[in-house]
Amino acid sequence: MRRIYFDHGGTTKPRAEVVKAMKPFFSEKFGNPSSLHSFGREAAEALEHSRNVFAKLLGCSADEIYFTSGGSESNNLAIKGLAFAREKKHIITTPIEHHCIVDAVGWLKERGYKITELPVDKYGLVDPRDVEKAITGDTLLVSVMFANNEVGTVEPIEEIARICTKHNVPFHTDAVQAFTKVPIDVRKLGVDMLSLSAHKIYGPKGVGLLYVRKGISLEPLMHGGGQERGLRSGTENVPGIVGFARAAELACKEMRPEMKRQARLRDKLIAGMLKVPNTWLNGHPAKRLPNNVNVGFAFIEGESLILHLDGKGIAASTGSACSSKSLEPSHVLLAMGQKHEEAHGSLRVTIGRETTGAEVKYFLNELPKIVSKLRQISPFKREYG
Amino acid sequence: MRRIYFDHGGTTKPRAEVVKAMKPFFSEKFGNPSSLHSFGREAAEALEHSRNVFAKLLGCSADEIYFTSGGSESNNLAIKGLAFAREKKHIITTPIEHHCIVDAVGWLKERGYKITELPVDKYGLVDPRDVEKAITGDTLLVSVMFANNEVGTVEPIEEIARICTKHNVPFHTDAVQAFTKVPIDVRKLGVDMLSLSAHKIYGPKGVGLLYVRKGISLEPLMHGGGQERGLRSGTENVPGIVGFARAAELACKEMRPEMKRQARLRDKLIAGMLKVPNTWLNGHPAKRLPNNVNVGFAFIEGESLILHLDGKGIAASTGSACSSKSLEPSHVLLAMGQKHEEAHGSLRVTIGRETTGAEVKYFLNELPKIVSKLRQISPFKREYG
Repeated sequence: MRRIYFDHGGTTKPRAEVVKAMKPFFSEKFGNPSSLHSFGREAAEALEHSRNVFAKLLGCSADEIYFTSGGSESNNLAIKGLAFAREKKHIITTPIEHHCIVDAVGWLKERGYKITELPVDKYGLVDPRDVEKAITGDTLLVSVMFANNEVGTVEPIEEIARICTKHNVPFHTDAVQAFTKVPIDVRKLGVDMLSLSAHKIYGPKGVGLLYVRKGISLEPLMHGGGQERGLRSGTENVPGIVGFARAAELACKEMRPEMKRQARLRDKLIAGMLKVPNTWLNGHPAKRLPNNVNVGFAFIEGESLILHLDGKGIAASTGSACSSKSLEPSHVLLAMGQKHEEAHGSLRVTIGRETTGAEVKYFLNELPKIVSKLRQISPFKREYG
Repeated sequence: MRRIYFDHGGTTKPRAEVVKAMKPFFSEKFGNPSSLHSFGREAAEALEHSRNVFAKLLGCSADEIYFTSGGSESNNLAIKGLAFAREKKHIITTPIEHHCIVDAVGWLKERGYKITELPVDKYGLVDPRDVEKAITGDTLLVSVMFANNEVGTVEPIEEIARICTKHNVPFHTDAVQAFTKVPIDVRKLGVDMLSLSAHKIYGPKGVGLLYVRKGISLEPLMHGGGQERGLRSGTENVPGIVGFARAAELACKEMRPEMKRQARLRDKLIAGMLKVPNTWLNGHPAKRLPNNVNVGFAFIEGESLILHLDGKGIAASTGSACSSKSLEPSHVLLAMGQKHEEAHGSLRVTIGRETTGAEVKYFLNELPKIVSKLRQISPFKREYG
């Protein structure tokens, strides 16, 4: 059976060039970057080369890049690292962040922090004026994601950054989904901290980074050998970091034409999926990631849809991969004002660099058949339909 | 020039079988284990297979294994995770732990925890009776490393575990260096938590695990998608975990004959190195890892020795790779009662599965020449000699 992968928001297949770049660091160049001998220096050079790649791509200096084990660690480090380092106890964030932000902030809330959740509109958009209204003298941090992982809505990051700078409040953004899909220059944007992950951009799992603007001090979450200038101890995942840098280089170089291509396929998907009766688009119609489609289907459950699509060789998701095994409806869709039964019927299709028009066509052919079959047996249909 | 790698305590080259096992998970089997579709299930199965491998090797159940990004994270999670989860505020540990324990504990000390550092003898051995004496009603945790990373001394873990069990105090051990060198069965040993790292056993960098006995609850350091039963969020490093499991399987299978072989080479190295005048063995002569040699050289600096050996193609270290770039003398040797100038002259040689008798011979031939050259130009020699 042909297999179609429409879950690039969940993870991506490392590119051949990435695997090739990593390979020597799994064999002859296996040294520990902290070692003084030639094996160590070889590894340390590769590490610093990778750091420079990111400095160039993001528009910062190399010593503002801290490699981590992934996006979740980067986000936890940004939030808790700042909380542990400063006295202020008020955090401004949104109700549509990834769970690693929501739960890190929730953990601080249990420890006496005051949390402001900014409202979002029906598209999931934050209004920068609400950020300004929420800032107090006790505000430790504003954290607003660059683009939402479920519905693809791209937030007004530059405007929020400007407000935070004006009030001298550190601003963090989770750019795990946005990176390589939209241009990111940390200086131009004016963000203070920014999180990235390798495995969402055709790099390996287990690697990420946190950009921290010079002048912002964090406490480490992991103490030890003092790697990453003392902020993130533990022997560096050299092959992973090398692969991450290679993946980022390639994706940024190809971004403009490739994202145009994906946006066209995305629009075809949206138009085709909305032809199914009783459906609606989740997320913003225009301010949206070029590879993200999220459509709600009345009367059916997203999970059943996923499983039936899987039976046809199509891999899609209901939203975040991380919460796909819980039965809770999407916190993102609920925050956007949807009812539980609406939020339960969402399907996320996230395309990628290998996605073809033929795959889109096949999917658009299979989907309506599955939907109508599911609706025929749906208890929701009987109840609400 | 031939290159000889004598720094297996710092890191190891992933075995060919490990790289082969990882490979499919960098390409066609790239799914996210949290995804509901077939790509996700494939990855989830590999993850659970790996968990079962460790359960079998360590003598525990699979749901007591938590994968992390490495030994440093495992150790930080054990200590801070327990501290965040419980009220007690007294920690018993040793002054010869790896920096990731020393500094994690130090961080808690700044936050009001009381720390007891157990004494060690001149070999770096802890006396279990001192553990018993140190335990109070407020003791949160005892953490004593299984085997020291610098001097190779193997601690009386079973006896310490017995005392902790008797007093109902959780006992954690950092077994990063000991694993696959000495038999480890967590139930027989009676430990409550145990940390491992992949890259010290011919697996990839960026992966480790923490064994946590059922009944011990920790707070996560990283919140988010709820992976690893909620204790360690973040998309799992599937290829890394698969490689780690393969490395562990192979090394445990080969342990008995291979460690006998390495112990013979180690003893040859020790005997040969001690023939150089004004030298001494660091660490215990018998209770010692089969692959660890650590010898002190009067009148010279370990760093110079490393660099001159490197010039002859030999990669060795002064102690922990993690602290090799700091100019501080080894905290381990100082705790064992050595003077600063003694501690500065240490050389650690850690052999591995590819180490040959010919390499040992070459090294023992080159070493005395380098030592005498260095001693001729040594300022220490003039001062103390």
